[in-house]
Amino acid sequence: MNNQKLLIIKIGGNSIDNQFELVQFLEAVATISTPFILVHGGGKLATDLAEKLNIPQQLIDGRRITDAETIKIATMVYAGYINKNIVALLQKNKKNSIGLSGADANLIQTTKRIHPTIDYGFVGDLNATSVNIDFIENLINFSLTPVINAITHDGNGQLLNTNADSIANALAISLASKYEVSLLYCFEKKGVLSEPSNDDSVITTLNHQQFEQLRKDGIISKGMLPKLDNCFNALQNGVNEIGILKATNILGFLNNTNHEYTRIIK
Amino acid sequence: MNNQKLLIIKIGGNSIDNQFELVQFLEAVATISTPFILVHGGGKLATDLAEKLNIPQQLIDGRRITDAETIKIATMVYAGYINKNIVALLQKNKKNSIGLSGADANLIQTTKRIHPTIDYGFVGDLNATSVNIDFIENLINFSLTPVINAITHDGNGQLLNTNADSIANALAISLASKYEVSLLYCFEKKGVLSEPSNDDSVITTLNHQQFEQLRKDGIISKGMLPKLDNCFNALQNGVNEIGILKATNILGFLNNTNHEYTRIIK
Repeated sequence: MNNQKLLIIKIGGNSIDNQFELVQFLEAVATISTPFILVHGGGKLATDLAEKLNIPQQLIDGRRITDAETIKIATMVYAGYINKNIVALLQKNKKNSIGLSGADANLIQTTKRIHPTIDYGFVGDLNATSVNIDFIENLINFSLTPVINAITHDGNGQLLNTNADSIANALAISLASKYEVSLLYCFEKKGVLSEPSNDDSVITTLNHQQFEQLRKDGIISKGMLPKLDNCFNALQNGVNEIGILKATNILGFLNNTNHEYTRIIK
Repeated sequence: MNNQKLLIIKIGGNSIDNQFELVQFLEAVATISTPFILVHGGGKLATDLAEKLNIPQQLIDGRRITDAETIKIATMVYAGYINKNIVALLQKNKKNSIGLSGADANLIQTTKRIHPTIDYGFVGDLNATSVNIDFIENLINFSLTPVINAITHDGNGQLLNTNADSIANALAISLASKYEVSLLYCFEKKGVLSEPSNDDSVITTLNHQQFEQLRKDGIISKGMLPKLDNCFNALQNGVNEIGILKATNILGFLNNTNHEYTRIIK
């Protein structure tokens, strides 16, 4: 059972901001013969656009508030420019792909976040039944590579901004019922670092016990904590393999030729 | 043969600019049981955004030039905000739909316009093999309504701005080999008018001979001429039925209850 492999590849913001690196990354992934899904975040483009349009970006406790103007901008940038740019570049590299938001084919339905004191605005949270796995399976059977952005919908006509790491995670867990899933978080660092300022301090493998120790010792940086919580949750929910790696090392990871990355294990 | 009906419904810019009218239109089309494809243009949103961002819009002989910044804006607005807004509203009305640019699934591949004296920039022209009809057929068999925007690609990584009327026309002609196609151009007027300033002067039926006479007499307005040329071309290439009508009269046309529209006949 579940012996067909599927890769869920999340690409982070910094790799998207640099068009040269993005082009290189997409040339590399286009050569992967295993079926895969690409999930992308936003990068600085949305922030830059909001600034140019004089739309103030409100932060509460370090979290961005997605007001009515900001969800419009996020939709334009993530579901429009970035998504179609990636798809066009994959097509150039003869990898037939299809760009999708969560609204498309009702792929990912989320619930507007309810918080007792903070109104996060148009932010969507995932749940166990968010992902339309039948549709994904159809696309893969049709040899199409889904390129999924961080815009979802509530089923009631409202688009919602959703964390791209969480989307990758939810896709991986949902699709683990049908495939042998590897979840790869690609970003600008070589992996999880034991010294955040030293890019060569990559932790090669990380199990849950080690993670809890490093968290307690304050060694793992703040932004990495929710990502790693997600990873261990995915491993416990049927995902086969998880890697955190530099986007430019994607083939090194897959072909087992460059071991500078972090593998998350139970 | 070709006895399965398919509607290609083009919705014009003015109906998109008015969110209230758009919501009403989408509520109406969501009730249509015949399979259909929605094709949409852009409206004023792209122009407004370019203005806010101080990106000058260059017009040569009344035609807009799509420079590098303008194709980004068009992609954000057409393939991003407008497309996903329409899809989310159709999902609200329980019509499962999927938003697509021409790059997605290599749906519509075009060629950058070459003109002896004018550089139109990133504008794509359609040809006979532009449309991936197999993919459209798959979506329809999967009970998904395609919502297609005016952004296409050249197959070499470049996104191109394409006339939405021409896309609707190319889809209709290509799909006429598989379906009995009706092509409906929905906009803000009741139909083709004999007196442009009198909204009640609707020409009920228009054949090619009558059209040529009205063109000669200067009665049909400039913007309507390429649309009608397209229409007669479509009829000669297997499209079964063509209507030009007010967006709010879509059900009146389909249910044969409101005859205030223009039917184009051979």
